[in-house]
Amino acid sequence: MTLFTPMLRASPLTEIFSDENTLQGMLDFEAALAQACAQCGVIPASAVNAISGQCQATKLNSEALAQAAAGAGNLAIPLVKQLTANVKQQDEQAARYVHWGATSQDVIDTGLVLQLRTAFDASELLLGQLIDVLAAQVQQNRHSVMPGRTWMQHALPITFGLKLAGTLDALLRWQQRLYELKPRVLVLQFGGAAGTLASLKDQGIPVAQVLANILALNPSDTPWHSQRDRLIEAATWFSGVSSTLGKFANDFSLLMQTEVAEVGEPVAEGRGGSSTMPHKRNPVSCAAILTATMRIPGMMATLYASQNQQHERALGGWQAEWETLPQLVMLTGGVMQTTLELLTGMQVNTAKMRTNLDITHGLIMAESVTLALAKFIGKQAAHHLVEQLCHRALDENQPLATLLAQHPDVSAHLSTTQIEHLLDPQHAIGSNDHFINQVLARATQQTRRVK
Amino acid sequence: MTLFTPMLRASPLTEIFSDENTLQGMLDFEAALAQACAQCGVIPASAVNAISGQCQATKLNSEALAQAAAGAGNLAIPLVKQLTANVKQQDEQAARYVHWGATSQDVIDTGLVLQLRTAFDASELLLGQLIDVLAAQVQQNRHSVMPGRTWMQHALPITFGLKLAGTLDALLRWQQRLYELKPRVLVLQFGGAAGTLASLKDQGIPVAQVLANILALNPSDTPWHSQRDRLIEAATWFSGVSSTLGKFANDFSLLMQTEVAEVGEPVAEGRGGSSTMPHKRNPVSCAAILTATMRIPGMMATLYASQNQQHERALGGWQAEWETLPQLVMLTGGVMQTTLELLTGMQVNTAKMRTNLDITHGLIMAESVTLALAKFIGKQAAHHLVEQLCHRALDENQPLATLLAQHPDVSAHLSTTQIEHLLDPQHAIGSNDHFINQVLARATQQTRRVK
Amino acid sequence: MTLFTPMLRASPLTEIFSDENTLQGMLDFEAALAQACAQCGVIPASAVNAISGQCQATKLNSEALAQAAAGAGNLAIPLVKQLTANVKQQDEQAARYVHWGATSQDVIDTGLVLQLRTAFDASELLLGQLIDVLAAQVQQNRHSVMPGRTWMQHALPITFGLKLAGTLDALLRWQQRLYELKPRVLVLQFGGAAGTLASLKDQGIPVAQVLANILALNPSDTPWHSQRDRLIEAATWFSGVSSTLGKFANDFSLLMQTEVAEVGEPVAEGRGGSSTMPHKRNPVSCAAILTATMRIPGMMATLYASQNQQHERALGGWQAEWETLPQLVMLTGGVMQTTLELLTGMQVNTAKMRTNLDITHGLIMAESVTLALAKFIGKQAAHHLVEQLCHRALDENQPLATLLAQHPDVSAHLSTTQIEHLLDPQHAIGSNDHFINQVLARATQQTRRVK
Amino acid sequence: MTLFTPMLRASPLTEIFSDENTLQGMLDFEAALAQACAQCGVIPASAVNAISGQCQATKLNSEALAQAAAGAGNLAIPLVKQLTANVKQQDEQAARYVHWGATSQDVIDTGLVLQLRTAFDASELLLGQLIDVLAAQVQQNRHSVMPGRTWMQHALPITFGLKLAGTLDALLRWQQRLYELKPRVLVLQFGGAAGTLASLKDQGIPVAQVLANILALNPSDTPWHSQRDRLIEAATWFSGVSSTLGKFANDFSLLMQTEVAEVGEPVAEGRGGSSTMPHKRNPVSCAAILTATMRIPGMMATLYASQNQQHERALGGWQAEWETLPQLVMLTGGVMQTTLELLTGMQVNTAKMRTNLDITHGLIMAESVTLALAKFIGKQAAHHLVEQLCHRALDENQPLATLLAQHPDVSAHLSTTQIEHLLDPQHAIGSNDHFINQVLARATQQTRRVK
Repeated sequence: MTLFTPMLRASPLTEIFSDENTLQGMLDFEAALAQACAQCGVIPASAVNAISGQCQATKLNSEALAQAAAGAGNLAIPLVKQLTANVKQQDEQAARYVHWGATSQDVIDTGLVLQLRTAFDASELLLGQLIDVLAAQVQQNRHSVMPGRTWMQHALPITFGLKLAGTLDALLRWQQRLYELKPRVLVLQFGGAAGTLASLKDQGIPVAQVLANILALNPSDTPWHSQRDRLIEAATWFSGVSSTLGKFANDFSLLMQTEVAEVGEPVAEGRGGSSTMPHKRNPVSCAAILTATMRIPGMMATLYASQNQQHERALGGWQAEWETLPQLVMLTGGVMQTTLELLTGMQVNTAKMRTNLDITHGLIMAESVTLALAKFIGKQAAHHLVEQLCHRALDENQPLATLLAQHPDVSAHLSTTQIEHLLDPQHAIGSNDHFINQVLARATQQTRRVK
Repeated sequence: MTLFTPMLRASPLTEIFSDENTLQGMLDFEAALAQACAQCGVIPASAVNAISGQCQATKLNSEALAQAAAGAGNLAIPLVKQLTANVKQQDEQAARYVHWGATSQDVIDTGLVLQLRTAFDASELLLGQLIDVLAAQVQQNRHSVMPGRTWMQHALPITFGLKLAGTLDALLRWQQRLYELKPRVLVLQFGGAAGTLASLKDQGIPVAQVLANILALNPSDTPWHSQRDRLIEAATWFSGVSSTLGKFANDFSLLMQTEVAEVGEPVAEGRGGSSTMPHKRNPVSCAAILTATMRIPGMMATLYASQNQQHERALGGWQAEWETLPQLVMLTGGVMQTTLELLTGMQVNTAKMRTNLDITHGLIMAESVTLALAKFIGKQAAHHLVEQLCHRALDENQPLATLLAQHPDVSAHLSTTQIEHLLDPQHAIGSNDHFINQVLARATQQTRRVK
Repeated sequence: MTLFTPMLRASPLTEIFSDENTLQGMLDFEAALAQACAQCGVIPASAVNAISGQCQATKLNSEALAQAAAGAGNLAIPLVKQLTANVKQQDEQAARYVHWGATSQDVIDTGLVLQLRTAFDASELLLGQLIDVLAAQVQQNRHSVMPGRTWMQHALPITFGLKLAGTLDALLRWQQRLYELKPRVLVLQFGGAAGTLASLKDQGIPVAQVLANILALNPSDTPWHSQRDRLIEAATWFSGVSSTLGKFANDFSLLMQTEVAEVGEPVAEGRGGSSTMPHKRNPVSCAAILTATMRIPGMMATLYASQNQQHERALGGWQAEWETLPQLVMLTGGVMQTTLELLTGMQVNTAKMRTNLDITHGLIMAESVTLALAKFIGKQAAHHLVEQLCHRALDENQPLATLLAQHPDVSAHLSTTQIEHLLDPQHAIGSNDHFINQVLARATQQTRRVK
Repeated sequence: MTLFTPMLRASPLTEIFSDENTLQGMLDFEAALAQACAQCGVIPASAVNAISGQCQATKLNSEALAQAAAGAGNLAIPLVKQLTANVKQQDEQAARYVHWGATSQDVIDTGLVLQLRTAFDASELLLGQLIDVLAAQVQQNRHSVMPGRTWMQHALPITFGLKLAGTLDALLRWQQRLYELKPRVLVLQFGGAAGTLASLKDQGIPVAQVLANILALNPSDTPWHSQRDRLIEAATWFSGVSSTLGKFANDFSLLMQTEVAEVGEPVAEGRGGSSTMPHKRNPVSCAAILTATMRIPGMMATLYASQNQQHERALGGWQAEWETLPQLVMLTGGVMQTTLELLTGMQVNTAKMRTNLDITHGLIMAESVTLALAKFIGKQAAHHLVEQLCHRALDENQPLATLLAQHPDVSAHLSTTQIEHLLDPQHAIGSNDHFINQVLARATQQTRRVK
């Protein structure tokens, strides 16, 4: 743990990528490899227990391993050395068969895939919870009228439910994508030194198949040592989820501004205070989410750059994944966890939403007047006229309703009652309900499919 | 066209994103919108022809439009103004109904989706051709033994077919992904000013459905004005394909180095010469591909950053997509087209591949000796012994075979004939054939599904 | 020009990187090269006029040149061919001496440096204007008290002048950096085919020196064909200026939000309207600036990636600069130009600034009360007490002044008059004047140095 | 330390950014602040020792601090709390004056600047060592002729000394830039809650000046809480140095390829071996350097994105620096350290360089023949003729010398002896010596200035 881990990475995904679990993923591969080789008659059955008995990360000296990795160029070489030495202490014969037929990258990549599988499982759970709480909040806020904002300016009324529904809709798509990508990403890496499984001779494919079975991973048509599209696909998923939630957190922080104040973060003792300003309630959850998501574009740039891996094993590109991908996954874990807490405990101030709607003296409803007028005088003319009256309303600080009622080109076609009705935000949320119903229906349907 | 377009973007995808086609995409939306509104009784049927008759990009003044866009903030506002004026000249009544119920972003986004659909079609064709030519080259080179290289050093023998099969395997995955993403990405954008379709009142959803039908796009559960995961998914596909092909081009340029010389780019008059060095045959295709793919990580960083779009319409994030996404797609078009030419006309020097295999005096085969020895003296001991002899072979410039035969710990277990057999690269490509067969089978199967 | 150029790149810097000026930069090199070679006796003096007479971009067929560049791999090869052919039509002898001793990259890089020099000149002018108008606005707004905002929440009062002074301070640093980097960046590229000037034999250095003199560029200690730190330094400057101005535009758009409304963009006919909402005044200048600056991190990622250029001339990295660097410079030009217009014509609503200060019922002044109390009861205790009263003020919608006066631990130490004085924002801007004076003094001093 | 630290970050710079040193930087600020406040009469002199006596990172509970930071949103708030509690245990009066007048960001930013200063010092030392060893290697290899390579193909001969001189030249520029940027970057952050030093009333500027003196940092004209150009400037320096060294490592790995074999990494027991291939000598130093430098473009994208910080303190942008900038600096430390070891112990195989020069049967010298011929038949004609003969030489595997001597258009102007002389690489390194002398002279001069 570093000083920033509780702030940025406080989710179950972080532990998955601890040093210990990184080594354990590799050891799980070694244990399964011994078993598969024995099952195919490549190594003696007697070696299996001796090897797998040592395949526990706690039996390794990870400090020494890290130091040796600097000279070796990767973690697998010193891991195999330590493992072999440990096995040898128990069973000198068995020690000969450690890591049989595999190359360093087989161990490291498969170990990573095993970590990713656990990370996907944990993410799926978090995503399901996010979808559940969001669906509940959409339902609860489906009639909370508030200003819709475009270009950072009031546009037309929407509901807070609809705003949340947009995020829910995107999360449902990320759930779909997760189903699609898992079989493609959760794949065994096993090719030997140059990707031909040469050292296993005619037993390469059988061992690969048994090994895939044991680890419950899909086999691959060819080794993918330097074809990294699977990993960029995995990264894309985590980045995408973070980006969707980052958009939500950014909106939330905008809605929480002192002047806007339509929502608030969950309140708790010692949360979001300032070291000097006692009145401050800082959006610390939003800050944590946005911090993480601001870093993701750069991480994705790194991972895209590292797609270009030379020949059968890369010099730089592969190695650039080692810290970057786990960092990305852990940050996304933090984003999901923090958003879950934010969504669960957020404060919604519907009264302030209504107050804010009135801030422009009715201008936010100008479009509906324009459209009503357009039927009589044409769209362009109506637009031009209402636009002028809007500017007058702003300049003279007068309600738009008054100016409209006074203008002959308006009063010729619309009564004061009609104007007032047209300017009421509650009548102006169009297909809000329909959109919300559609998303909630899909959430129900998609969630049912999973459970 | 700029000076660099023929070099970097010479594919059918470039024309799709010309200024004219960008405007046409938007006009196609406007024409379909008029039709849908009329069909739902929102505007008079008589307006449809008058409007759609003007929906041709050539009828617009694009220079004036671009100038006006600077003040308006987007292309749709001046486009609608010009379109309305043009319609008005023909039919003053109809002019009132231009752009009815839509917002600028509906026009711009749907126009973009229509361009993306054409780009996906063109890409699918190019990808199919790439897969076909690559499958043929895999088949043709399946026995061409060459050095496998890891860490930029000789590792073990592979075949050139297997190297190509890795790229083919990845392209088949990109083909799968394309099938999956298209229904999710090719979606109508239609939400009106703040995403509620407020101005269409109870006709919002009916108009949206008819509009989606006319344009042959999927409807969306909610408007996605500021939920841009669909676009990042599209971008991800183009970037991924480029990255896969960039890896191939990089390998190709490494194989084409003067000392390696295992492959060559297609030869043609005036191609790849130098302004000063008459002997040069520069890998200009590889250069063009790598130039494009080097820029993609940065473009993806931009698109990920632009995922964070404020509220119901963004200030900066949306607009940052406008040039970046088309640039990315056009570069990928160039990458696919150039790779297709490279794969079709490439020169393969199998003799040089064999010569290069011998460059290390047999060291490249050292692993097979190690494994044979390991059966007798254990893997670690065998590894250590052979490593020492390899270093001697290099230092003393002697064939490894000789040193092996002379060493008592080897000769005790392996005869000279056995050693020579173990050191022959042809016997050392392991599961090469199996891997190749698997990929070719999938290519056949997947291609059949498409046709 | 593309559809987005007036919106994003409307500054003098754009024309500098037109296709024509790109070719002209290269031709200026060729003309100067002929002159330098003749001056050093390497080519006949008679060839100079014949060559330089053809060194006008308008005499080239740029379409054909672009097409040929695709096969040649760069623009210089077909340019030299066309130039040679054109010279030959006038003077067959002279045609032999075109491009004497140079390599393609000498032409292209020096041409780029010449463009960069013009771009720096234009930027220096724009930057000077930005500094002038900003200094004037700082002076004018030095007493305009407004809420300082941290974490997107009200913190303590500041002045609008101080906010502007922060940007001015940063721009003054960019001005300093520009002085420092120009001699390092504006350097001749001249090394011949592999960077040894081999073909010029013992005349390499003399020709280089004369050439540098003619072009008024610094010579370099070694050719820098694949050492691109000078270009990243140039890019860093443009990116940095854009980033500083992007931060200002982002603040501006936040201050312009409907609820905040402390500033407004310049008002002009047809500026910032909406296609559907007549009341909208969109911050189109901010949008254009933010669009550009959102793309800069990705472009910098590309340029950093392209720093890794192989051997004596790169395959991919060099070429990736060709479009990226000019795009970055042109976007920055647009950012500077647009910001200049924004700063010149912006609307400042000091009344709304005061109104917003009162929005938290005095909470924004809580710190000064805390500090006054701290002298009596200690900092932690004072902080804790005032924090509690702030929360009550918010929850009960009461002025903080009232709650403070009522609390015995406060009234024991502070009178009502004292409390009121402590809560007046005008008394709470600390060293505002001093900071502003410092920046304005530096602006005067630094500007004087330039003029 | 994580598993990858010894591989990627084994330099003195890593320790500087340990959790403990991060806290210590902040505590150094707090101690100096107490001293400055006392000196200006703002707090009692008696508080100073009590406070500074607790300003040791080891006295903090960093685990609890990290946990509390998640709720507080930054490290400073819990640090001040713990520090205050610790002081209180010693001196209840003094505890009231901890952190007087400062805001969290003052502590965090100044702490970072103090870390950066130490990092610059360590970097300056490493850079000086790199320059020294590189200058020595340039001198030693100034006559080692080798193929110059452009577009990954043989171009003309250069020397290994000249190749190294290019890197040395760039490093000397980075040294210059470091001198220039330090006074601008090593600056106190001190503005209080909103950047006005309001709580210090008329003592703000005096305290700031004394504080800057104590910490030996420059004062700033205005607080720079959300003006981050200084940090991007610092980041630019580290990234630039890494990029320059990454280019060198990439060249090195290309030169070390099995077929090229002109250089080798230092040889040591257990260094660069393979887990399966005993003959492998993997370029592990190059791999470590390239891994780090591949990640830098993405990190720079993050830091550029984080330049856009809202108002007086950012939500996301500031926080995104916290891990990214130290990671970048530590990776650069690793790059410098590893390159130093590589340069010191590298193996240079001048014999192989010569052998490689002959690989194209003299084609690498084709340009000199072209130029000699050009005097007689014109440059374009000479180029065309020699290009044809070069292609024949390659196709027919014949020495270029033979083909040249046989061609009447050549033999009419050049004798066999002349041809042979023209084809000798030793005569064809042009201004190599001059370039090398220039760089070495600058190295001497610049280094002298420092010492």
